[in-house]
Amino acid sequence: MPKALEDVTVLDFSHLLQGPFATQLLGDMGARIIKVERPGQGDLFRTMTFKNRWVGGTESPNFLAWNRNKQSIAIDLKAPEAKEVLFKIAEKVDVVIQNFRPGVMERLGYGYEAFKKVNPRIIYCSGSGYGESGPYVTRPGQDMLLQGLTGLAAATGRRDGPPVPVGAGFADQIGAMNMVYGILSALYWRERSGKGQEIKVDLLSALLQHQNQEMVWVMNFGENLERPNSSIGHPGMDAPFGLYPVKDGWVSIAMSPYRKLVDVLGAPDLLVYDDPETLYVKRDEIWEKLAEETRKWTKADLLEALLAADIWCGEIKTHLDVMDDPQVRHMGLVTSYEHPRAGTVKVIGPAVKMSETPPEIARPAPIVGQHTEEILRDFGFSEEMIASLRERGIIEQGEA
Amino acid sequence: MPKALEDVTVLDFSHLLQGPFATQLLGDMGARIIKVERPGQGDLFRTMTFKNRWVGGTESPNFLAWNRNKQSIAIDLKAPEAKEVLFKIAEKVDVVIQNFRPGVMERLGYGYEAFKKVNPRIIYCSGSGYGESGPYVTRPGQDMLLQGLTGLAAATGRRDGPPVPVGAGFADQIGAMNMVYGILSALYWRERSGKGQEIKVDLLSALLQHQNQEMVWVMNFGENLERPNSSIGHPGMDAPFGLYPVKDGWVSIAMSPYRKLVDVLGAPDLLVYDDPETLYVKRDEIWEKLAEETRKWTKADLLEALLAADIWCGEIKTHLDVMDDPQVRHMGLVTSYEHPRAGTVKVIGPAVKMSETPPEIARPAPIVGQHTEEILRDFGFSEEMIASLRERGIIEQGEA
Repeated sequence: MPKALEDVTVLDFSHLLQGPFATQLLGDMGARIIKVERPGQGDLFRTMTFKNRWVGGTESPNFLAWNRNKQSIAIDLKAPEAKEVLFKIAEKVDVVIQNFRPGVMERLGYGYEAFKKVNPRIIYCSGSGYGESGPYVTRPGQDMLLQGLTGLAAATGRRDGPPVPVGAGFADQIGAMNMVYGILSALYWRERSGKGQEIKVDLLSALLQHQNQEMVWVMNFGENLERPNSSIGHPGMDAPFGLYPVKDGWVSIAMSPYRKLVDVLGAPDLLVYDDPETLYVKRDEIWEKLAEETRKWTKADLLEALLAADIWCGEIKTHLDVMDDPQVRHMGLVTSYEHPRAGTVKVIGPAVKMSETPPEIARPAPIVGQHTEEILRDFGFSEEMIASLRERGIIEQGEA
Repeated sequence: MPKALEDVTVLDFSHLLQGPFATQLLGDMGARIIKVERPGQGDLFRTMTFKNRWVGGTESPNFLAWNRNKQSIAIDLKAPEAKEVLFKIAEKVDVVIQNFRPGVMERLGYGYEAFKKVNPRIIYCSGSGYGESGPYVTRPGQDMLLQGLTGLAAATGRRDGPPVPVGAGFADQIGAMNMVYGILSALYWRERSGKGQEIKVDLLSALLQHQNQEMVWVMNFGENLERPNSSIGHPGMDAPFGLYPVKDGWVSIAMSPYRKLVDVLGAPDLLVYDDPETLYVKRDEIWEKLAEETRKWTKADLLEALLAADIWCGEIKTHLDVMDDPQVRHMGLVTSYEHPRAGTVKVIGPAVKMSETPPEIARPAPIVGQHTEEILRDFGFSEEMIASLRERGIIEQGEA
C-alpha cells in the first residue's frame, strides 16, 4: 500500500531521543530518513542503555526503540568535503532536523540560512531544551530536568512525600511530536506557497503545552492544586479517582458515581461522604476508607463487579504484564523487526491506524554508516568521489 | 502572516480532552474548527473543573484550556434535519474528527462511510481508549486507567510505595498528538492522491508508543525494570540521576559525571561508589548519601555550583512558580485571551515556533452555539431555513 509521506526525504542530524523519535514517526509514514552520524561511534544513544544490558549483546535497546525506518550515513561533519556532500544532498531533500545544543549547527556551518541558500523549499526544524535564547539557553535541557522545572514532578506523588518524576522520557517524546506537528504543517503549507521555513521546538514549551489544563486553573486562580496525601490520582481530583489496593495488587478507579461504587463495595456507611465538597476536601480520608474495602477483594473479582456496574476501572500492570495483555495483543502493538546484529528485536508497533496509507516498519534501526555509499550513489556522487572520501576517512561504510 | 493550515476546515464532533486538544493544535495553525455541540449543555468538559472553581464564576478552566481557535455550532445530532445540515457542510470540509465510544457515531448515522459518500476527500479521524474492537472495546478509556494498564503507573514512584499516576492527563494529550500526526500525514498524501481516508487513534497505543524505550528493554530481556526505592528518577537509571532535597526544597540532577558531582559537593568519601555496576546496584544507598550532602545547601547555592561545573541540574517548581520562571517569560509561554464571559483568561501559548506561519491564538474558546447562524450562512443555508431550525429547537444560537 502507498505511504502518506513516501515522497518526503529528511536529512536527519539529530541524536539521543527528541529528534530521533520525530524522524521515526515520519519514517513510519514512509518518509525517507537519512540519519547523519559520526563515523565510528555514531549517535550517542547507541552507547546508552539501562543496567548495562545490550540486545544481541551489542545493541542499545534505547537506540533500537527510536531509529527504525532510517538509513545511516556516517560522515565527519567537520571535514570541508562533508559540507560539499551534505549540501548537494540538501538540494533534493524536504526537511532538515537537528537537536544539538543551540548554536552548535550554526558554528559547524549547518544552520538554517546555509540550507536555505541551496534549497529555499527546505523545512528546517531544531529541537532544544529551553528554546534558542533567554536565561537558560546554555543549560542542558534534559527530560527529567524539564519535568521538575515545569511543575510536573511537584504535581505527582503524595503531599507529604517527595516530588516524583515520571518513569519514562515524556518531555523528549512530546517534544518529538511537536517537531512532527510543525514539520507536517509546514509541508502542507509548502504545497500552497512553495516556501520552506524554520521551525523551533523545545522541551519546556512542550511540557507546559501538555499541562495547559492544570496551568489554566493555577494561573487564573492564583493558587496551586495541592497533591493528595493518598493514592488519589491527580492534584485536582476528588475521591474516588485514584489507585486502590486489592488482595493481589492494585486497581485504578476513575471518575465514577460514588454512590454506585460504595454499593458495589457493599459499604453503605461510606455514603456519609457523598457530596461534591466533601469528596474533594476529605479525599484522603475517603481514599483510606475505600481502600479498606477494596483490600478485601481480589483484582479479578473487583474488576468484574465494577465493570458490571459500568464503573470506570482498570488493572495496574507492569511492563512485562503489558506484553501479554489481551487488548495489546489484539491491537498488534507488540511486534518485531530483524536486525543484522541483534537478531529479532521486539518493539511497539506504529500507534496510528490509517485505511489507505498504513504506517509500517520497513527497516530495522541501522548500523552506523550502513547506507553511506548507497545514499551517496543515489544522490549522484561518482564511485571515484566515494572512494576518495572513504580513503580520507571522511565517510565510513558500516557492515551489517 | 499566513497560517500553515488556513485553507483546512475541520468538522469537530469531539468532546472532553483527546479530540479537543487535537483540534486546538490544528486551530493554532490556522485551520477553521467547527465544533459541533449539543444545544444547552454543549461539550461535557464545560461542566468539569477541579475544586468546583470556575473562571469568571462560570467557565470551566479545563474547557478553556483546550478549545481556543474554534467556532461552535449547537445542533441536535439526533434530529433528521441535523443530518441534512451537517452532510451539506461536510461536502466542503477536509477533516471530520470524533472521540465518542466506538460505534456511537455509526449508530447516530455519522460514521466514516456516510461522510465518504458525500465527500470522498474527507479525512475521518476517530479517537478511542483501546481501539475499536477487541476484548476491552466496551470499557471506558480514561487517561489514568491507561496509565495503569500500560505500565506507566507501575514504573513511577518508589519500589516499596504504591504505583503512581502522573499528575496530568498525558494519555489523552498524547492521543491528541497522534490524531494530529495522522491527520496532517493524510492531508499531505491527499495532495498527491486526491483521496481521503479513515484514521484510528487510541490511548492504549499512544501510551505504549511513548514507552517504547522501556518496552524494548523489558520485552527483549524478559524482565521488568524495578522502581528505585529512593528519588532516583527512572527505573532504569543509576545514581545520581534523580531529585535531591536541599535546605529550601528540591533540585534535579540528571546524568552527570559522578566524580565531578562528588567534587562539587565536597564529599570525596563517596568516590568509593564510582563504578558503573555499583552506581546502579547501590543507587538507593548512594542517593541517601548524596542527599545527606545536598541537604546542607540552599537551592540557589547548589544550582550555581553545579551549573558552574556543567553538571546537568535544575529547579523543582510548582505550577505557580512556573508562571514567573524567567525562561518561561522569555519564551512568551504565559499569555491570555479575552473571553466574552470569563474576561481575561491566562493560558499557555502555542509551543511550536515557525518563521513563516507562526501559530497564534486568534479566538477564545467559544460559548455553546456562539457561531451557529454564522456557520450556517457561510455554508449557504437560507435565513428561512435557519429560522425554521431555530424555532424547532434543532439548533441554538449562543449569546456571547
